[in-house]
Amino acid sequence: MRALRALRPRRLLAMAAAAAAAGAGSAARRGPVLTPESMNPAIRRVEYAVRGPIVIRAMEIEQELRKGVPKPFTEVIKANIGDAHAMGQQPITFLRQVTALCVCPELMKDESVPSDAKERAQRLLDACGGRSVGSYSASPGVQMVRESVARYIERRDGGIPAKADDIFLSTGASDAIVNMLKLLVCGSGASRTGVLIPIPQYPLYSAALAELEAAQVNYYLAEERCWALDVAELRRALSEGRRRCNPRALCIINPGNPTGQVQSRECMEQVIKFAYEEKLFLLADEVYQDNIYAQGSAFHSFKKVLMELGPPYSESVELASFHSTSKGFMGECGLRGGYMEVVNLHPEVKAELTKLVSVRLCPPVPGQMILDAIVDPPKPGEPSYERFQAEKEAVLSALAEKARLTEEIFNRTPGIHCNPVQGAMYSFPRIDLPPRAVAAAKEKKQSPDMFFCMRLLEETGICVVPGSGFGQKEGTYHFRMTILPPTEKLKILLENLSSFYTKFVQEFS
Amino acid sequence: MRALRALRPRRLLAMAAAAAAAGAGSAARRGPVLTPESMNPAIRRVEYAVRGPIVIRAMEIEQELRKGVPKPFTEVIKANIGDAHAMGQQPITFLRQVTALCVCPELMKDESVPSDAKERAQRLLDACGGRSVGSYSASPGVQMVRESVARYIERRDGGIPAKADDIFLSTGASDAIVNMLKLLVCGSGASRTGVLIPIPQYPLYSAALAELEAAQVNYYLAEERCWALDVAELRRALSEGRRRCNPRALCIINPGNPTGQVQSRECMEQVIKFAYEEKLFLLADEVYQDNIYAQGSAFHSFKKVLMELGPPYSESVELASFHSTSKGFMGECGLRGGYMEVVNLHPEVKAELTKLVSVRLCPPVPGQMILDAIVDPPKPGEPSYERFQAEKEAVLSALAEKARLTEEIFNRTPGIHCNPVQGAMYSFPRIDLPPRAVAAAKEKKQSPDMFFCMRLLEETGICVVPGSGFGQKEGTYHFRMTILPPTEKLKILLENLSSFYTKFVQEFS
Repeated sequence: MRALRALRPRRLLAMAAAAAAAGAGSAARRGPVLTPESMNPAIRRVEYAVRGPIVIRAMEIEQELRKGVPKPFTEVIKANIGDAHAMGQQPITFLRQVTALCVCPELMKDESVPSDAKERAQRLLDACGGRSVGSYSASPGVQMVRESVARYIERRDGGIPAKADDIFLSTGASDAIVNMLKLLVCGSGASRTGVLIPIPQYPLYSAALAELEAAQVNYYLAEERCWALDVAELRRALSEGRRRCNPRALCIINPGNPTGQVQSRECMEQVIKFAYEEKLFLLADEVYQDNIYAQGSAFHSFKKVLMELGPPYSESVELASFHSTSKGFMGECGLRGGYMEVVNLHPEVKAELTKLVSVRLCPPVPGQMILDAIVDPPKPGEPSYERFQAEKEAVLSALAEKARLTEEIFNRTPGIHCNPVQGAMYSFPRIDLPPRAVAAAKEKKQSPDMFFCMRLLEETGICVVPGSGFGQKEGTYHFRMTILPPTEKLKILLENLSSFYTKFVQEFS
Repeated sequence: MRALRALRPRRLLAMAAAAAAAGAGSAARRGPVLTPESMNPAIRRVEYAVRGPIVIRAMEIEQELRKGVPKPFTEVIKANIGDAHAMGQQPITFLRQVTALCVCPELMKDESVPSDAKERAQRLLDACGGRSVGSYSASPGVQMVRESVARYIERRDGGIPAKADDIFLSTGASDAIVNMLKLLVCGSGASRTGVLIPIPQYPLYSAALAELEAAQVNYYLAEERCWALDVAELRRALSEGRRRCNPRALCIINPGNPTGQVQSRECMEQVIKFAYEEKLFLLADEVYQDNIYAQGSAFHSFKKVLMELGPPYSESVELASFHSTSKGFMGECGLRGGYMEVVNLHPEVKAELTKLVSVRLCPPVPGQMILDAIVDPPKPGEPSYERFQAEKEAVLSALAEKARLTEEIFNRTPGIHCNPVQGAMYSFPRIDLPPRAVAAAKEKKQSPDMFFCMRLLEETGICVVPGSGFGQKEGTYHFRMTILPPTEKLKILLENLSSFYTKFVQEFS
């Protein structure tokens, strides 16, 4: 009560002020609690270009088209995001049958669904509380699915053991990535946690680091060597970072997003040794592990390379590897499924991670069901095998063809420089921009690549993301474009984009 | 390069130390980056009792039972969490049919599914990118579902307008709650954001505040008046809070979790006026809005009461109201669906919220589909109407009966004091514990209620959550128990729990 009395004068003052303001009209009586000035400044600093200003404008244009506003094009093509189904890719039947039967077991009676899909759905339901996908699962995920993921990893990695206990299912990969970053971040000032991320990067990383107020330490991929990762550059970045923060983690995206490169095994070994020597936690974003197109490129998981390096690396380098249902051949973004495997994680830290995920209760259960079907697909001889394989191969071979086409058509155009799309589902071409275009952008207070992409959108309906949203070497300009549109549409898109570029350069020359 | 040279001595030292350690055995060569000591201390401070130590022990006991370890019971009954389907509640058919057809449109041909479910699924698919739930939705949710939610709110609130643009779909309610808290938190030391939360509270709030390093400001609900909220107590708490932080938000849980009370309209009006005067942002957790059992109790939304109070309140008090697919009559926890409605939010802050949710891309699309079916259920005359109504009424009337039973059986036992369960799905009885039990708990370094609940679990297999996980007045002891088990099982559970309590008291008297 003493406190109350002590504060009374302040409250009386506030009330008097409110009463005074009331005279000036009700809107002025009391301002809002939350304003741009009074909100969390860390959130204000967050940027996420993949759904940023250009995409907001693309959605406005779509509405304008619907209202009949005349435009030099008839539809907006959103090549801004790796959203396969939105671009017309068909879902894989087996995956959807299993998930739908889990959601509505009454449909088990439907005769069009093959027996293996029914059996799988039944086994998954048996693993759910009350045999319902409406129950919360255990916070790290349904045990049966964690086991399936562990077996998948073992097959992928040539028999190197994986434990269900090290698998944490997640809401897409983003959720797990942010959770690992949350565990890592601490300290303040020069002792604040720093995280090395590639430039160009997928902007989830810069956004999460901004939100967590951690330090972003940039290492640059070598565009001139097909976006290769160079350990000397890691060392440079680490030294730079150590002057202002405490770098504790190294993030690798392989295959690369937005850059589409696939790392060599030799490079990965060097990265692991570097992480060992410099005491860095490895975050391996491997969500494009099924998306490898280039001759001579192969996916190696960091887990496998780490284990094959043997001691001391294999028993001390901490690694979290992320995977998702959103990419690969399935493209099931909307289901928000994913998982993380942790390696060499301190047991008490693992317990803290388990506690952290428990606060959000569990990842979406339908996403867990579809993940099981993805990591444990039909086997030869089972009723769904042929259809599953045919659908999967059709998606992957079309993607390989589209990766080839993209590189070929872009590189025909003088001023556009496109590395081979070895993997993932994006190209990230560099574009030469004339000084007058750079000046025109400056006048509009836009980055030159944003200026280019906005003009492209307004004049052709093609929506791609400026390179500045991913980071790029000072003075270079890029854009990220997905290779997901259907082949014939992609060809037209690439031709239109290239001729727009040529016209744009002429305009500003 | 200068930096590299400057750091070289430190690196050489580190390498020399590593080499020296190598001689002492490989495990000692290089410690882990992440240890309990070096991890984010804010995450360490997070507690979440609903899935805490007692639940971990319950899961161990389940495994022991499976292995044949003899116990004085044959199954663990998990009454720790509001997980209806896990307790045997059946899903509502219409909701599941719609969602399953969205997941697997091939099943539209199934003749057992009524036409209205098929039409709904088709409309929802038409609203998805590429007509697939595998596409990302817009980050605040599928537009059609946001519209359906707005119409639902209007019907619920007697016609007060709601705008789709103010609706943000979410991954359960937790996701939206944490996002609003993230926007609110800023400052440091005495200017750090404080949030008033009820005690007892649902521990998501304390966990999120710990993670965000915001200040938790406790206001106590009046157990002696059926857990009523008292504005004088809000004033006391606010004064206390203002001495150490900057309280900017007031969180209300109505109907109450874990306390099961339903607020009166008068009380809500006072709360809104208080929030207006003291410039607090209102966070209204209304996920139990369909779970009202007591005669004379009725759910009023904060939105409705705020709008009916008129200016200046209706045009200035900022409100975020949260709802979920997990509770109500549907209990669809695993789908992770939910939404938030924002009222009077500053337009630029709303844009920042939209940006924040875009980083996580979108809420799970199946959860959005089921939400649409929930907020826009079959109408009289439509093929699914009768079955839908019958299933919904069966769940709600069983819950009302179980709420009544719980209060009745507990209050028969001397030493157990149980308020009426007016709403939600929990009872939070107070238990008198003998001083010798309190001393025995102290010896085991457990809180007395944890000691009681652990003994209860070990001896009867009943898993409930100690009151200390939710907060309670110093020197009082409670536990939270769901009323979800099937009626016959719940009766046995209540009888067993009551007799265990009596035995426990005798043992320690």
